[in-house]
Amino acid sequence: MLQFVSHLLPLLLLTSAPASGAPLRDAVRSWRQAHEPAIVRELADFAALPNLASDSTGIRRNAAALAALLERHGIRPAIFDDGPWPPAVFGELRSPGARRTLVFYAHYDGQPVTASEWATPPWEPTLRVREGEAWRSLALPAAGNRARLDPEARLFGRAAADDKSSIVAMLSALDALRAAGVRPTVNLAFFFEGEEEAGSAHVREILRRHRAALAADAWLFCDGPVHASRQPQLVLGARGVMGLELTAFGPARALHSGHYGNWAPNPALALARTLATLRDEDGRILVDGFYDDVRPPGEADRAAIAALPDVDRALREELLLGATEAGNAPVAGRVMLPALNVRGLQSGAVGAQAANAIPTEARASIDVRLVPDQAPGRVRELIEAHLTKQGWFVTHDSPTAATRLAHPRVLKVEWEGGYAAYRLPLDAPAARAVRGAIDEMLGHPVLVMPMLGGSLPLASFADELGVPLVTVPIANHDDAQHARDENLRLQNL
Amino acid sequence: MLQFVSHLLPLLLLTSAPASGAPLRDAVRSWRQAHEPAIVRELADFAALPNLASDSTGIRRNAAALAALLERHGIRPAIFDDGPWPPAVFGELRSPGARRTLVFYAHYDGQPVTASEWATPPWEPTLRVREGEAWRSLALPAAGNRARLDPEARLFGRAAADDKSSIVAMLSALDALRAAGVRPTVNLAFFFEGEEEAGSAHVREILRRHRAALAADAWLFCDGPVHASRQPQLVLGARGVMGLELTAFGPARALHSGHYGNWAPNPALALARTLATLRDEDGRILVDGFYDDVRPPGEADRAAIAALPDVDRALREELLLGATEAGNAPVAGRVMLPALNVRGLQSGAVGAQAANAIPTEARASIDVRLVPDQAPGRVRELIEAHLTKQGWFVTHDSPTAATRLAHPRVLKVEWEGGYAAYRLPLDAPAARAVRGAIDEMLGHPVLVMPMLGGSLPLASFADELGVPLVTVPIANHDDAQHARDENLRLQNL
Repeated sequence: MLQFVSHLLPLLLLTSAPASGAPLRDAVRSWRQAHEPAIVRELADFAALPNLASDSTGIRRNAAALAALLERHGIRPAIFDDGPWPPAVFGELRSPGARRTLVFYAHYDGQPVTASEWATPPWEPTLRVREGEAWRSLALPAAGNRARLDPEARLFGRAAADDKSSIVAMLSALDALRAAGVRPTVNLAFFFEGEEEAGSAHVREILRRHRAALAADAWLFCDGPVHASRQPQLVLGARGVMGLELTAFGPARALHSGHYGNWAPNPALALARTLATLRDEDGRILVDGFYDDVRPPGEADRAAIAALPDVDRALREELLLGATEAGNAPVAGRVMLPALNVRGLQSGAVGAQAANAIPTEARASIDVRLVPDQAPGRVRELIEAHLTKQGWFVTHDSPTAATRLAHPRVLKVEWEGGYAAYRLPLDAPAARAVRGAIDEMLGHPVLVMPMLGGSLPLASFADELGVPLVTVPIANHDDAQHARDENLRLQNL
Repeated sequence: MLQFVSHLLPLLLLTSAPASGAPLRDAVRSWRQAHEPAIVRELADFAALPNLASDSTGIRRNAAALAALLERHGIRPAIFDDGPWPPAVFGELRSPGARRTLVFYAHYDGQPVTASEWATPPWEPTLRVREGEAWRSLALPAAGNRARLDPEARLFGRAAADDKSSIVAMLSALDALRAAGVRPTVNLAFFFEGEEEAGSAHVREILRRHRAALAADAWLFCDGPVHASRQPQLVLGARGVMGLELTAFGPARALHSGHYGNWAPNPALALARTLATLRDEDGRILVDGFYDDVRPPGEADRAAIAALPDVDRALREELLLGATEAGNAPVAGRVMLPALNVRGLQSGAVGAQAANAIPTEARASIDVRLVPDQAPGRVRELIEAHLTKQGWFVTHDSPTAATRLAHPRVLKVEWEGGYAAYRLPLDAPAARAVRGAIDEMLGHPVLVMPMLGGSLPLASFADELGVPLVTVPIANHDDAQHARDENLRLQNL
């Protein structure tokens, strides 16, 4: 759990009465060692609550548990439950005489799961440690237990890393500082979103309604993974994201591929042909005009990226990748560009379930990562224009029989709420302040990533609130976030 | 059930003592009317047995039931259970003094099912009749019941049409002739295969082992659907078939599409790109050399095809197809060419289950229809050469970590047993004899299809036994064979 110290402590120190670095670090370490089982248990209990944003009951159960958690840590909570969407959970800790306010952000919802694919149930957080090629389960420590935990053990469960770990880490850091007698000199607030993994469709609405409560001098986002070298990093932006689902239609009922193969159009092939037009083998997106609004990385960005440790080779070997895109270009540079990912394909059946039939439809699920200054609305227009150019009649609803008969090729396109990218310049005052505080605590320059590959709804916050945003990740890079067997490495907590 | 008369009666008459057409037809009709409920009940009972060739226990249960069925219809059965594959069921009916032998073929196995997609359970044959847009269930008639059944009612269930209906139809036709006092003048035999839908991998072995018992002057294949105009047709060949499964590999674990999108290769896109190279929009296969061995249709073939009723427009409307391949070319001509069908795609997840992750693998399931004189082995070589040319390292086994690391793009290719096409020339004596008999019974020329689009393992029989093969389908063309909600229209029985 050392990184919990190196990550969050300096951020809280930014906000606290001056204290000498080394003694405070020692005091906090002692406190942390004495409370490890309780911290892990707190995270496990919280991660046991299914937290899909689309599950209205489940997500409200999470919000209530989170409010209780804040209260337990001495923070007055409020639940912003304003409509038929996941509520945000807010907490504040006013400091007498303080003139500045700092807001900590995290999200408490998680990605969908396919439970059957998980080694341990996604909503039953399980502590496991690697032994050779296998993982051995460990009992969760009792809260009162004072035994040290293996820092390489991992807590498996949906949202154990992304992003409930950040919430537990920041509340624990606060306890540690309190125990050391350090008092904040600025007002602290906490804002926990419940719809981040579903595209943050309502976050702007929430920010607008609670603008007064959320006013601050800067926001600190605790989300995303630390650098793949396991070193802490400071992140000054994040790519935006959009999602879309494509459905291509074949015959109204599945047809015998012998009697009708070569006559009835095959929707899987038609869709594959279109997907092949979206990107080249190097990942360059072939949609006309797609790069028009892309702000290229500046010299300072490129220098920061060049200073990052080289993790590509080790990552490639771990992932069994014989090569990566664009001639093995480094990952840190690649995420400065937009990306188009096919996250799912479905048509007919494969393997033992495959029948010799022409499928009735074929589906592809896609996510697009945006960079400054691409606007989601414009990207949507460009992609639809591209699809139309490929010969599709594009519709946003399920096509009627008349529509299908009137057009040789019909494609249903469904868009998910998305948002733009955000990038704080490296020389912005907030960036320099946070960077300086962490550098001092670490004793060496912290890694700085100009933009995270993953998406955070930073642009919405920047637009609505007009404050600078700095991101400080907690979780391990190999946490399988968004996938099966998501896990948090305890040392990262 | 009129077509049961028009189809099978003339074939049996070929083999019977001369009898005047009209009185015999009347006698058979009376017999059939009196026995309708029993015939439908017999088919329903038989179709209730799950009959996947890969289910060793289930397929043997079918074989035993089929042997019992033969016995009940006065035919001495034998089960050719020679090894760890689905047995064939054989029956014979020797006629004193006969010099010629005719063998009737059908298969008793069926395609896999995805039961959850069916309106009624696939192994619980259900009688339903259309009322407006909906289907109303009817009780199955008791065997002793003499009520007439709605000829437009359909029996829903896997293999209710393909191909158990053919077996029940031929046994019933035999009973009807017996009841009319007509005695065969040639020896009759029946050969029922249990592995047709799985690619007939062992049928040659079975034919070789039982060559003596199966010696004949001609074989009549009762499989496939009647013409889409609902008129009976004579079929002189069938396309061959091959199956293959492709698996493209991405990262060893699903990766966050933000942090790694644009760096880790996406297997779904790589596979889509390759699928797009296999065929053009008109269905022409783009694999080098693919058409080298294709025997083009002759003038007589083209004339027979031109004489078929035009069903394309009605079919297109029924299937909600705005257009079909190759500029709406007629289906009967299209099936004279080879075809490549993607029967399934699978990668990651779509819809509500989609997560923003780069999938670990992508799969495509493909079937290829062959025409004379394409050889499956050669086609396999050509397709693998094409895949290699697309930049894949092709392997037939699951790749090891070392293989994946050594090659930028690894594709696992798994082949299913397949077989070549077969086409009997229109002027072959067996073709002319059968055609003449049916023409005489119908009072007008029967439709002749030079080649069925679907596949029958005819080439194996022709090669092994050196006999001419003629195909006489029973089932309705809209029987959803190989798909969900397979059904037999009673009038076809």
